Amino acid sequence: MQNTAEMIFTGDELLRGDIVNTNQSYLGEKLLDLGIFATHALCVADDRAAITKAIGDSLGRQPAVLILSGGLGPTEDDLTREATADAFGLGLVDHPELLEAIRTLFKDRGFVWSENNRKQATLPDGAIAIPMRGTAPGFYLEAGGTLVVALPGVPRELKEMWTGDVEPLLRERRLGTEGFAVRRVRTFGLGESRAADMLSGLEWRGAGMDIGTRASKDGLTIILRAVATPQGVLLLEQTEARIREILGGRVYGVDDDDLAAATGKLLRRAGLTVSSGESCTGGLVAKRFTDAPGSSDYFLGGVVTYSNGAKSKLLGVDEALLAAKGAVSSEVAAAMAEGARSLFGTGCAVSTTGVAGPGGGSAQKPVGLVFIGSVVAGVTVVEELHLPGTREEIRYRSAQAAIDLLRRRLLRPSQNPAARLPLSA
Amino acid sequence: MQNTAEMIFTGDELLRGDIVNTNQSYLGEKLLDLGIFATHALCVADDRAAITKAIGDSLGRQPAVLILSGGLGPTEDDLTREATADAFGLGLVDHPELLEAIRTLFKDRGFVWSENNRKQATLPDGAIAIPMRGTAPGFYLEAGGTLVVALPGVPRELKEMWTGDVEPLLRERRLGTEGFAVRRVRTFGLGESRAADMLSGLEWRGAGMDIGTRASKDGLTIILRAVATPQGVLLLEQTEARIREILGGRVYGVDDDDLAAATGKLLRRAGLTVSSGESCTGGLVAKRFTDAPGSSDYFLGGVVTYSNGAKSKLLGVDEALLAAKGAVSSEVAAAMAEGARSLFGTGCAVSTTGVAGPGGGSAQKPVGLVFIGSVVAGVTVVEELHLPGTREEIRYRSAQAAIDLLRRRLLRPSQNPAARLPLSA
Repeated sequence: MQNTAEMIFTGDELLRGDIVNTNQSYLGEKLLDLGIFATHALCVADDRAAITKAIGDSLGRQPAVLILSGGLGPTEDDLTREATADAFGLGLVDHPELLEAIRTLFKDRGFVWSENNRKQATLPDGAIAIPMRGTAPGFYLEAGGTLVVALPGVPRELKEMWTGDVEPLLRERRLGTEGFAVRRVRTFGLGESRAADMLSGLEWRGAGMDIGTRASKDGLTIILRAVATPQGVLLLEQTEARIREILGGRVYGVDDDDLAAATGKLLRRAGLTVSSGESCTGGLVAKRFTDAPGSSDYFLGGVVTYSNGAKSKLLGVDEALLAAKGAVSSEVAAAMAEGARSLFGTGCAVSTTGVAGPGGGSAQKPVGLVFIGSVVAGVTVVEELHLPGTREEIRYRSAQAAIDLLRRRLLRPSQNPAARLPLSA
Repeated sequence: MQNTAEMIFTGDELLRGDIVNTNQSYLGEKLLDLGIFATHALCVADDRAAITKAIGDSLGRQPAVLILSGGLGPTEDDLTREATADAFGLGLVDHPELLEAIRTLFKDRGFVWSENNRKQATLPDGAIAIPMRGTAPGFYLEAGGTLVVALPGVPRELKEMWTGDVEPLLRERRLGTEGFAVRRVRTFGLGESRAADMLSGLEWRGAGMDIGTRASKDGLTIILRAVATPQGVLLLEQTEARIREILGGRVYGVDDDDLAAATGKLLRRAGLTVSSGESCTGGLVAKRFTDAPGSSDYFLGGVVTYSNGAKSKLLGVDEALLAAKGAVSSEVAAAMAEGARSLFGTGCAVSTTGVAGPGGGSAQKPVGLVFIGSVVAGVTVVEELHLPGTREEIRYRSAQAAIDLLRRRLLRPSQNPAARLPLSA
């Protein structure tokens, strides 16, 4: 069909669980952006007959595009060229220009040449080479209304070939439907059912508009898809605006925006700096801030005080307070944020202290109890979280929540009423 | 065939790239541990005819096991029960005991009952229910030598059903071959070709022994697989021992061992404590140390000094040194490690300073130049790294390398000659 695609990934490592197939989600998303729907994605073992059969089965369903990934290397297990030729009843043809390119690459990089690499310079008869991004050329082959595209399995090479060659070709050929305009609205601090309640007034399934939600460790993403007609794009923009109105400060960005980077933008705009004082997150708040390139403009530094001694010595948390309230307490979270602010001389600061588990919990202070603190304009605010999940999940979520607390405080509350809502764990 | 499996995952979200299919790698690994080889893993859209066809195609290849995942919920898009029945030419049968269990669950959790949920209490005629782990029962169905197993798509529920029901059944039935003994030898600081050279003397393909390597951000893993006979296990143990002899201190553990946790074990055994002083890794070294539960026994704290001012003030790095050598220098890395050690009063310390990019590089100090420092027993050692990759890759790799430098120094060099080899980027 005009707007469908299939994918076949070869490689025992995918079936043995040695690696997770991120190429599939990458390609699925990219295809959909072009208005092409993937209907089947198959991982098949490195077996010539099985790959040949899989290609044949797929061609029988007549997708507009069949993407093959993997099996383009020089080893005996690399069988995509052979299996594609078999499936079409074609022979393999030497391509001297590819051999030359591969030889040159080997020379330039000082790799040792092996005759096995000759294999990579052969293609099924009639195929057109896609230039190498590593040491393996890809190829196109057309038959019976299906465009077969063979790409490497190495994710970096696959992505470069996709963006550099395949995507432009598919756009040019208009293989998809009108294409979809997609907007991913990123939120933090909202559960799926809560978001559904808040957004229930939106009529989001009319006029070619599709809306979905996806919960991840980075919060809830609301995915809007509309056919890329002028009306569709307008509807998408109106819906996004309406969602922002309803959810207010819970929305931290769109598409690939990152919570820490979005918070950094607000700091930069306000000419403010920030520092961190961490306990249970163990450096993750600082790590998240500094994930963003250029974060040294506003993030001056942080301390990880994993012991009570370090909390007192570095952050000036009163030893009597630690003894009276315990390290995991609202008061200590406040003192840690204030201590970090003072130590680094920053305008703002955030802090975390909690029980990340799996051990260390008690009846009064169970695993998942976390206090996050923030100082903005001399005012300290602490929130108490009760988080489910593993140690890793609790730590990540705590770091995100601490950064989000700062972010919400940097927004002007008057314009963002929802920014004052309590955080939903 | 007696020892093969296939997997079919249903769900548009898998084909749109909304989520990555981690169920596949989980099941692939688990099957292999039982000596069952997955030959095909298909993701198919939520389309009854397409799922039915996929099940039929798979049954035609006569795998011992066919695992279905997803499509067991109450919505219109949940079609696994129907498609399985269609593929076998069976009807769907009501199971009052399942309906009762689902109703009870809804009552207990205070969920609102919807008549849609009745669907989840039906199974193809002759199927045997697998008890719910969420709100959806799974099922078994046997036909023509293939055991069909339907599991939920939610990873947590799938895993619980697998370990609680399916794996014990498959073990009991001895569906696999003898089963495989698997050992994953974890190394850091070795490239694949270097490892292949070093290990080329091993005769690793004899006697049912299979060896592979997998490069990831956590280093190179050498995967040994032997048929789980007494001879096979012995061969595996001997090979592991030989690999440890050859690679020495490059080996940091086996199976699920983690580099930072392994380093923590050495610290704990030696009764030593550690702290960190970080620049380019921005908290990632501290985060990696504190990923391990119980790390407060040896990790006392860390500082992230993203500005020169913080490097001087907190870590006591000489301002004149910073001016003369620059923050990214061997001398500053040494001073940062020594400063962290002194600040936290720990026995050991590690430090990082470098250019993580994408901006900030120069001809003298390009992106990817990183210095890692360590103090052990009063002696400071710095290593210089030239790392490829993205900002994220450079940061992660730097943090791992800094921790690994400490780890190698904590090993007794006399017993681990390879621990003195220079680090290979």
